[in-house]
Amino acid sequence: MSAINKNSGLRDQTAGQTALCAVDLDQTGLSYCGYDIVELAEQSTFEEVTYLLSHGELPDSTQLHQYATQLKSLRSLPPSLKQTLEHIPATAHPMDVLRTGCSMLGTLEPELGFDQQFDIANRLLASFPSMMCYWYRYSHDRVRIETQTDDNSIAGHLLHLLYDHPADALSQRAMDVSLILYAEHEFNASTFTARVCASTLSDFYSAVCGAIGSLRGPLHGGANEAAMALISQFQNPEQAVKGVKKKLQGKEKIMGFGHAVYKVSDPRNAVIKQWSKKLSERAHDQRIFTISEVIEKLMWEEKKLFANLDFFSASTYHFLGIPRCLFTPVFVCSRIAGWAGHIFEQRKNNVLIRPRADYIGPALRSYKPVDQRV
Amino acid sequence: MSAINKNSGLRDQTAGQTALCAVDLDQTGLSYCGYDIVELAEQSTFEEVTYLLSHGELPDSTQLHQYATQLKSLRSLPPSLKQTLEHIPATAHPMDVLRTGCSMLGTLEPELGFDQQFDIANRLLASFPSMMCYWYRYSHDRVRIETQTDDNSIAGHLLHLLYDHPADALSQRAMDVSLILYAEHEFNASTFTARVCASTLSDFYSAVCGAIGSLRGPLHGGANEAAMALISQFQNPEQAVKGVKKKLQGKEKIMGFGHAVYKVSDPRNAVIKQWSKKLSERAHDQRIFTISEVIEKLMWEEKKLFANLDFFSASTYHFLGIPRCLFTPVFVCSRIAGWAGHIFEQRKNNVLIRPRADYIGPALRSYKPVDQRV
Repeated sequence: MSAINKNSGLRDQTAGQTALCAVDLDQTGLSYCGYDIVELAEQSTFEEVTYLLSHGELPDSTQLHQYATQLKSLRSLPPSLKQTLEHIPATAHPMDVLRTGCSMLGTLEPELGFDQQFDIANRLLASFPSMMCYWYRYSHDRVRIETQTDDNSIAGHLLHLLYDHPADALSQRAMDVSLILYAEHEFNASTFTARVCASTLSDFYSAVCGAIGSLRGPLHGGANEAAMALISQFQNPEQAVKGVKKKLQGKEKIMGFGHAVYKVSDPRNAVIKQWSKKLSERAHDQRIFTISEVIEKLMWEEKKLFANLDFFSASTYHFLGIPRCLFTPVFVCSRIAGWAGHIFEQRKNNVLIRPRADYIGPALRSYKPVDQRV
Repeated sequence: MSAINKNSGLRDQTAGQTALCAVDLDQTGLSYCGYDIVELAEQSTFEEVTYLLSHGELPDSTQLHQYATQLKSLRSLPPSLKQTLEHIPATAHPMDVLRTGCSMLGTLEPELGFDQQFDIANRLLASFPSMMCYWYRYSHDRVRIETQTDDNSIAGHLLHLLYDHPADALSQRAMDVSLILYAEHEFNASTFTARVCASTLSDFYSAVCGAIGSLRGPLHGGANEAAMALISQFQNPEQAVKGVKKKLQGKEKIMGFGHAVYKVSDPRNAVIKQWSKKLSERAHDQRIFTISEVIEKLMWEEKKLFANLDFFSASTYHFLGIPRCLFTPVFVCSRIAGWAGHIFEQRKNNVLIRPRADYIGPALRSYKPVDQRV
């Protein structure tokens, strides 16, 4: 048994192989199945990307049409799932809602064999926005929304349910780009959770429930929510500089900066920052964007930390009118694409993921009956 | 980045430290916090063991009394959880039921801070048998059972709900021993799932939902169900010998034999085998036990594979009147003890578990718009 890494969280250790995603390989940024993330964000759609992550290749136009049509047909929720969602209080953590919704759907539409895996991935991809918004609108406004809409894209569907009317083209495209950027990121903790679960040959829903649970953790998802909480504290750039400096002096962690894998910059930041700017200009409201930019500059000057995807996603979501508590659930609506790809990949060439632990507990000792213990 | 193990499932690699459990350390069998599993199974109770795994030490009599009293008070289910369980069809996989029940409870009684972690562990320990039996009895018999009973132990509570009357002392003790034996086993896949999830600082329920999902997989839990399916095929020992030989010739895997960590024998086998024998004698029904013993002997002679805990757990559960589809859920009712201990331990000295992957996908390629693809 190798015992090199005592309690290092497997940092920089290889736990398997993937063909889905290269993160900072030879400092080339991020690519999905060989396609640079910047090109995908500029030119492709989220549906093309989810197809790519499931099939390893981009779809041709016939495939894309069929695929998008299928996804569109999978947005409604079974009555038992809706009733379950109605039982979840407005105060619940929205990630617990998606975890429960996914788990419940698994009892109602179970994966009876791995030949169903693509259908189930599509079902979750299409219905996570429905679950999220159905619960949100019911628990907050006591409205039972119709989740089957005619929007052509997942981005459009999600915003439509949230707004209660179809979203304009610019908002839809901003959402689409954000979904592309969050879709996949190698063996991050939630994806690794999904792979460990899949490696027992468990069902698709179990792997996704596990992944949602891990993404819920503040060390993984949640950074964009925290960034928004920070940004919205300040009224103007001067306040922001002063406030962030004070936090840094107090050794507070500023969320949305630095990265476990990237060392110099996050290739996704420039893309999402552009969108944040574009939306702020349309809104004629520069405050949040300017404050964000000032904090970005300060963090680089003071700590040599660069903004990661989460930082300008915060203001982007703000301008898209997404409630802050739904930022991480929206992450789920995107990352399900990557999780699905990894579950397929794990199953294709499966080995049970079962590491060992170094034992650091007491040496063997004799049991004494309870009345003889002191 | 180390790249020694390409796709080995981290086999024999250390992924962290634990003080909870030593598996085959210097060929000493299995111990929980320094206590040999055989001594614990002979002399302790499941409640003592769950206390041990949560606190690192066995309770004195005052502590044990307080602890058992608290557990007894936590058996009822909130109305919204019961209604959710009622929506789950009888055909659902019972592990999906516990995963959903756990997730739903997490929305109703959330962990708002880690200072609640012991209470939530106790809540799940006390209420998993309730969830399992409430759903089982409602979906199969349309009976809404009262889950708050007066039984002194978790073993007694579980059997009481299943039987609809209190269990006799021998059955209770057999169940108790089985719960002790299944309670903990180092970094198995479900426990490792719980630790990966906990390492993001996610909540307790998320970690347990992930663990249930992994235990559901046939490469992890489920071996005792498969063993029972095998054993019950045969009418007598001669048939069993013939049948198993034929399966071995056909390269079929016989479940309940061998182990990823133990090389010579599973220290838990002798204990559970004794209980299977005792219960079969009481039932005046030697068939299942004799067939099991014959298969055990044959597997050793033919394949040099020893029976693991799962093999004689199958016949033990059979004599206890547990429906086969609930064998793995009963495993959850026990292993929650180990998962809880590992979640506490992970949080106490946390490092995010985030390994890397070796990239084996396509080299960088240019994006082409969909109408230019062939």
